[in-house]
Amino acid sequence: MVVAEAPPMPGNVSAVHSGVRIDTNGSHADGKSPNNKQEFMRVYEVLREELMADDLIAGQPSFSAEYMKKMLDYNVPGGKLNRGMAVGDILLHLTKDASKQQLFEANILGWCIEWLQAFFLVADDIMDNSITRRGQPCWYRVPEVGLVACNDYIILESCIYRILKKHFAGKSYYPLLLDFFHETTHQTAHGQLLDITTAPIGTVDLSKYTEDTYMRIVTYKTAFYSFYLPVVCGLLVGGTTFQDAFAVAKDICIEMGRYFQIQDDYLDCYGDPAVIGKVGTDIQDNKCSWLIVQALQKASPSQLAVIKEHYGKDDESSIAAVKQTYRELDVEAMFKQYEQESYERLSKLISQQKFLPEEVFTALLKKIYKRQK
Amino acid sequence: MVVAEAPPMPGNVSAVHSGVRIDTNGSHADGKSPNNKQEFMRVYEVLREELMADDLIAGQPSFSAEYMKKMLDYNVPGGKLNRGMAVGDILLHLTKDASKQQLFEANILGWCIEWLQAFFLVADDIMDNSITRRGQPCWYRVPEVGLVACNDYIILESCIYRILKKHFAGKSYYPLLLDFFHETTHQTAHGQLLDITTAPIGTVDLSKYTEDTYMRIVTYKTAFYSFYLPVVCGLLVGGTTFQDAFAVAKDICIEMGRYFQIQDDYLDCYGDPAVIGKVGTDIQDNKCSWLIVQALQKASPSQLAVIKEHYGKDDESSIAAVKQTYRELDVEAMFKQYEQESYERLSKLISQQKFLPEEVFTALLKKIYKRQK
Repeated sequence: MVVAEAPPMPGNVSAVHSGVRIDTNGSHADGKSPNNKQEFMRVYEVLREELMADDLIAGQPSFSAEYMKKMLDYNVPGGKLNRGMAVGDILLHLTKDASKQQLFEANILGWCIEWLQAFFLVADDIMDNSITRRGQPCWYRVPEVGLVACNDYIILESCIYRILKKHFAGKSYYPLLLDFFHETTHQTAHGQLLDITTAPIGTVDLSKYTEDTYMRIVTYKTAFYSFYLPVVCGLLVGGTTFQDAFAVAKDICIEMGRYFQIQDDYLDCYGDPAVIGKVGTDIQDNKCSWLIVQALQKASPSQLAVIKEHYGKDDESSIAAVKQTYRELDVEAMFKQYEQESYERLSKLISQQKFLPEEVFTALLKKIYKRQK
Repeated sequence: MVVAEAPPMPGNVSAVHSGVRIDTNGSHADGKSPNNKQEFMRVYEVLREELMADDLIAGQPSFSAEYMKKMLDYNVPGGKLNRGMAVGDILLHLTKDASKQQLFEANILGWCIEWLQAFFLVADDIMDNSITRRGQPCWYRVPEVGLVACNDYIILESCIYRILKKHFAGKSYYPLLLDFFHETTHQTAHGQLLDITTAPIGTVDLSKYTEDTYMRIVTYKTAFYSFYLPVVCGLLVGGTTFQDAFAVAKDICIEMGRYFQIQDDYLDCYGDPAVIGKVGTDIQDNKCSWLIVQALQKASPSQLAVIKEHYGKDDESSIAAVKQTYRELDVEAMFKQYEQESYERLSKLISQQKFLPEEVFTALLKKIYKRQK
């Protein structure tokens, strides 16, 4: 193990720290191929065909079955697939001699996570009145869809349990799988609720933007489904049901999920639009972003007055006034400090636990730190 | 057993037929109290308090927890509670010596069905752009709610699995319970999808209004969650896991669910608005109702032309033209005939099976035939 001082930097990571090496060249030290995207996409086709061949769905009139197929193809496979692909990666890092069948099962669970995300994103876009998602109109904005999308995401969610039943009902860990998917849905929905009630559309109440509330939103809305669930799925397919391993994984994944979302908030304001692919709008959208939460804690009375006057207003001068206050408070430096501290916490958590290979987590870290957007 | 010829009539049923007696005086022959509504409501309070005491929810900022509580009280307990109360009734008819604990469990499962219905109704009202539900504004029309309701019904659904886990995780039939709730959600959502794609808002395509499509919609959208699921829950609490009993129950419940919905369609046009509490709007709303499906099958070319011109149009003369065609075809007589035949099929199914006490099903029949709306 090599030890270096440099903290990890988004987009250019080959940092090593506290005994945890983050390998960013995309291949494994032992030469074993990581989870393969083409194979992952093939598994999607298998699952979709199985769903379409379900007695109920295959028996529907063609206009209904065709709608279903189009809905799946539009919403499930078009994302970055990081969460879904991660399950296979985790399995391969956990068990070097994972069988083809195990990798297939890991990829099925990876797709269940992508299905879960699709379910939440279709709902989220309706609630946020969003325009585009993944480079195409949001599903509910497709003319023949509209608010039928409200039923479509119920179907997206129910697909998860069809898939789990078909492929895992005979496994000893099937009850655990069901429980984790239910639990994650519960957590994500309550993270959403807290997010929405903290910053309701059309109203600004900055007194609700506390550190505690921010961390709860991020933990429940993002960390569990994006990090803990893929790890849990990888561990279960790999044969791990040891409670202590799950407890350790949970701590690490929550820390990672928080960092991931805080980085997202940072990039919204400080990222290069050409790289992240969009111009950030958190300030004018009145988002309970990590940046505003920090600014509110450090602001002088006069800076607080500026924030209160301008946050959540969609005009250039208001956005500039908030950004100027961020500069005065050096919120960017606060982020860098958080990033450094979070990395140290993660490294410590990863290296101090003895239940799982470090690669299980460093592979995930790699995905975060490499992302450009 | 007394045998009489009179078919059952909605609102005034003491009919006896094919060996099946439908008792409508509200008390049981053996003097045992039926499931008690006050006790059922008390169980709701218990479940709501348990949910609110959940670590995640109790730890939320008060504005989020209060929103959750209000959302539950607004959407879950305000219906007729027929489906939920039925589980306890079924248990009592199945096992005369059911324990207090068993009745409590039956009522918990009854509430899970009410939660499932609340989940689907909140979604349905958004999709249909409905105004009122159960005598109050639809949840999504409450000013501080709006499309946040899209997340609220995700939470409503997730409550089901919290409740099931807390009260049934240790039971041998817990995996079956989970499977039945998943299956029913899948069926109901696909019934909804078929309903929506058969009659999309704003378009009229009567060629899709076939008998087969109608029966599929009704079976999946209504029969499974309204009839089969309560029976299944009652059987499981009562200790029945015998596959043949479930198969018999399924056949009977599907027949009953179809009758129930067809009666609903009949009442929309032929019911007394003062009794059913609303003026029917299926004709102008372009609904794929049992009446129009029958009319389309029997209409002459000229009658078909009238239907095509006027169905789905919201003006008095169009509605009158469609009703006149119904009169010419005597659609009302078709309903009476269907009702008679359905009753005979049900009676035969109930009396010929040997797995379950007839009262399990006749108690349900009573609830249908007595309803005024």
